Amino acid sequence: MNRKQLVEQIFQKKTFLCVGLDPDIRKMPECVQQEEDPIFFFNKQIIDATAPYCVAYKPNLAFYECLGVKGMTSFERTVEYLQKFYPDHFIIADAKRGDIGNTSAMYARTFFEEYNVDALTVAPYMGEDSVTPFLEYKGKWVVLLALTSNKGSHDFQLTEDKEGERLFEKVLKKSQQWGNEDNMMYVVGATQGQMFQDIRKVAPNHFLLVPGVGAQGGSLQDVCKYGIIKDCGLLVNSSRGIIYAGHDENFAQASAEKAKDLQQQMEVELSKIG
Amino acid sequence: MNRKQLVEQIFQKKTFLCVGLDPDIRKMPECVQQEEDPIFFFNKQIIDATAPYCVAYKPNLAFYECLGVKGMTSFERTVEYLQKFYPDHFIIADAKRGDIGNTSAMYARTFFEEYNVDALTVAPYMGEDSVTPFLEYKGKWVVLLALTSNKGSHDFQLTEDKEGERLFEKVLKKSQQWGNEDNMMYVVGATQGQMFQDIRKVAPNHFLLVPGVGAQGGSLQDVCKYGIIKDCGLLVNSSRGIIYAGHDENFAQASAEKAKDLQQQMEVELSKIG
Repeated sequence: MNRKQLVEQIFQKKTFLCVGLDPDIRKMPECVQQEEDPIFFFNKQIIDATAPYCVAYKPNLAFYECLGVKGMTSFERTVEYLQKFYPDHFIIADAKRGDIGNTSAMYARTFFEEYNVDALTVAPYMGEDSVTPFLEYKGKWVVLLALTSNKGSHDFQLTEDKEGERLFEKVLKKSQQWGNEDNMMYVVGATQGQMFQDIRKVAPNHFLLVPGVGAQGGSLQDVCKYGIIKDCGLLVNSSRGIIYAGHDENFAQASAEKAKDLQQQMEVELSKIG
Repeated sequence: MNRKQLVEQIFQKKTFLCVGLDPDIRKMPECVQQEEDPIFFFNKQIIDATAPYCVAYKPNLAFYECLGVKGMTSFERTVEYLQKFYPDHFIIADAKRGDIGNTSAMYARTFFEEYNVDALTVAPYMGEDSVTPFLEYKGKWVVLLALTSNKGSHDFQLTEDKEGERLFEKVLKKSQQWGNEDNMMYVVGATQGQMFQDIRKVAPNHFLLVPGVGAQGGSLQDVCKYGIIKDCGLLVNSSRGIIYAGHDENFAQASAEKAKDLQQQMEVELSKIG
């Protein structure tokens, strides 16, 4: 999916919500746990219920890999289900990959050919040749970690060099020599508040993937105040806050309500730039 | 496997070689490609042939994931084969994972419970809470990226802060507050030559996992000159240089010869510290 198509979806549906599909069997309602493939069953219900309120889904690979081959089968089935029934939804595989060139090329093949998702999160630590193999796929996106939502983000990402440039700023600047606004997004945590101003100074036009609203405590309004741009330029993700909203057989309906609530807040924000 | 056991293996077998199991079907001899599970068949032959000359194996997940569920089955079978027939070999899953705390915990569960490997490579960009969940498993190891072997390593890892401390040094120092010499190693590329002196100033006693000898051009002798310590403290990895040494049905024998050649060079280096 290209940028124009993504932006069209956002303004048509009045939402820039991304639903994180992080299925943890231990947190699912009991009725789901008895299914043959509980993860796929759970995802399918969540997707059907939330699809009207979001433009993207972000399965986090950790939650599938931890079940070995069985979990990866659930991941495949989830992606295939989305592609078949919701082809206008953007799919981000949240895998935070990145390795030396020839290995990154293998990961790129995995996610952009084998699974054929739209985007992949990538870690920047290993530099240019760890990122560029992912940029060779037309219509696909790298979502590069810049300033993450977790506490540990302060350990290295805020380190200033001799000129006062912080590591996340260096990542934003340097990576713009490798990709562009049409094939690269950045991860910026919603918990970073006013830091969005600094991000927008260096990356004024890139889409930002924003985790951390909901369970992690970030504010949608703050993110929009400092981060929204004229074609929106934001995908705000919520995982736990949406998918574990309910605890019984009506869990999908509870998720839909949480997603709808965020969609309505997003509609307000979008009306300000419309 | 704990440090004492690993060191015993190194001095007993007179080698600190790690064989990288990066099976790319396109590079395998034709006779292998016709097998039902070519990757496992290939790995099994390579393992049987090289086991006397190495103390560790490092499957790189990218090469398994790229084949989807089928590839992950080959990975599982490879790990199970090693655990059953070569229980004294150290197994490093090269996956370069790292995410927010609750997600890293899922990855830790995957690799240390589900697959039960000895060690996992982890990317440091997201800081403390992305690394510590892996350190909670007794007898298991985090192998943290410090100064990698690829060209892109210079993009961010050498960035100096205001006090002249480079990012890889900050990673080495900070992470020593999270783990210790008995549950944490560092990745340092063999291509970094004299940088091993700087590494040893900050991490004098940690084991280093050293890729980049062979296909990537690093020198074993340089690595030892600057990096070896009294209990060795090195695992030197070669992947492509060993596993693709042969191109016909005698491929495993060709791999064994390459591995033996490295083992003999390592024996010389070990005799200097013995």
